[in-house]
Amino acid sequence: MSKPQILVTNDDGITSRGIRKLVELMQQLGDVIVVAPDSPQSGMGHAITVGDTLRITPTDIFKGVDAYKCSGTPADCVKMAKHHVLKDKAPDLVVSGINHGSNTSISVLYSGTMSAAIEAAIENMPAIGFSLCDYAPGAAMDHVDEYVLRLAREALKKDMGHNVALNVNFPAEQTEPIKGMKICRQANARWQENFDRRFDPYGREYFWMTGNFENHDKGEDNDEWAIANNYVSVVPCQFDLTAYHAIRQLNDDWELD
Amino acid sequence: MSKPQILVTNDDGITSRGIRKLVELMQQLGDVIVVAPDSPQSGMGHAITVGDTLRITPTDIFKGVDAYKCSGTPADCVKMAKHHVLKDKAPDLVVSGINHGSNTSISVLYSGTMSAAIEAAIENMPAIGFSLCDYAPGAAMDHVDEYVLRLAREALKKDMGHNVALNVNFPAEQTEPIKGMKICRQANARWQENFDRRFDPYGREYFWMTGNFENHDKGEDNDEWAIANNYVSVVPCQFDLTAYHAIRQLNDDWELD
Repeated sequence: MSKPQILVTNDDGITSRGIRKLVELMQQLGDVIVVAPDSPQSGMGHAITVGDTLRITPTDIFKGVDAYKCSGTPADCVKMAKHHVLKDKAPDLVVSGINHGSNTSISVLYSGTMSAAIEAAIENMPAIGFSLCDYAPGAAMDHVDEYVLRLAREALKKDMGHNVALNVNFPAEQTEPIKGMKICRQANARWQENFDRRFDPYGREYFWMTGNFENHDKGEDNDEWAIANNYVSVVPCQFDLTAYHAIRQLNDDWELD
Repeated sequence: MSKPQILVTNDDGITSRGIRKLVELMQQLGDVIVVAPDSPQSGMGHAITVGDTLRITPTDIFKGVDAYKCSGTPADCVKMAKHHVLKDKAPDLVVSGINHGSNTSISVLYSGTMSAAIEAAIENMPAIGFSLCDYAPGAAMDHVDEYVLRLAREALKKDMGHNVALNVNFPAEQTEPIKGMKICRQANARWQENFDRRFDPYGREYFWMTGNFENHDKGEDNDEWAIANNYVSVVPCQFDLTAYHAIRQLNDDWELD
């Protein structure tokens, strides 16, 4: 029986620690192919490259692994992997990450890691985006191994639903081991931005976006709760943004004729 | 009674025809403030600027209108408008566009126009993204005026739902006038990408992403149907990506312990 083919990508760029970890783990499960951005793409959301050219170049950065660095966004990488590198043959699984930093709750919208997974879901390829809730460059990562492997094994064996991608977040390493996994909904939380005003050496004003994360969601079935309680959060995601509950309201109340 | 304050942004950049049209129309309804990208941002999805600086500069490009060009993405523009320019006072309405080109169905994910509107919805500001299904630089636009004004008037008077933004698409001008507006769901359609391979003057390979739009949705309640039948499509959008239908399946079928 032939081994499953697993496409690995990310948004921190092909040289990041997180993707190296993911490649090593996926090599235990199948034939790995890597198509990842040649530079960091954090915060790129579901950006694609429409007004510019794309380049893709083989690299031997991962020993014994067929790998390519791409000038595009994470979503571009999945598109190029499927249609160009794999000649339209879908891989058995697409994994993205492991992202350095949380992609829980509203961050899924801004996340390049998850946009790669959702791009795969659009083409109905099983897909998982992995993120570690620890921004430290040297953050411990080995505590996530068994969970990455278990989820990937299940995804290779079982259905996750049509056009669905999983958003998986891992708590930073604690003194206690992770308590387990929770299937969650996206928490209702948001960033409250601030703009840090500075002046460049020529006296011109510029800003850094900063912000505080505000979680008003009191539920215990959401990804913020899971992470805060040392569980792995697993949120199945889809890409139909229609606010179905608002359709009736608009049809009833708004004067559109 | 003071006039409503209306924030105008877009993704084609502050010098585009579409935003000029939108500014002129909104001036009929309220006090307009513009914060828009200083260069085209098409396809930026919900990108934000996290690893780079942001600049914002006043411009007199719109006569008598308080306007700023911003180095960031459409989502950045909304954040900077609210938190920096307006000092955290929410405008009464946020409008984005008019985009040069369609943002129906799956394109909502890639759309900078809609990411600005959804960013506003995250902060619970009423928001509408407008797009014209005509990519021609000189495309006729006057046929959309009455619909832009009617929707903006309703949005200023009535509730569109908590954390909802409207995705409005206009058909290209036909010989027959537009038939009316339809409240729709997002069509289940997608892009089938192709990569057009070329070589630069130095003999190095590069690609342009191209693609065909594939609509497999046979319903008559979706935005593709509305546009194809010369209606304005109005899709209320939200940003909880949770695939609720998949939660039970994962809890039932997957072995996660």
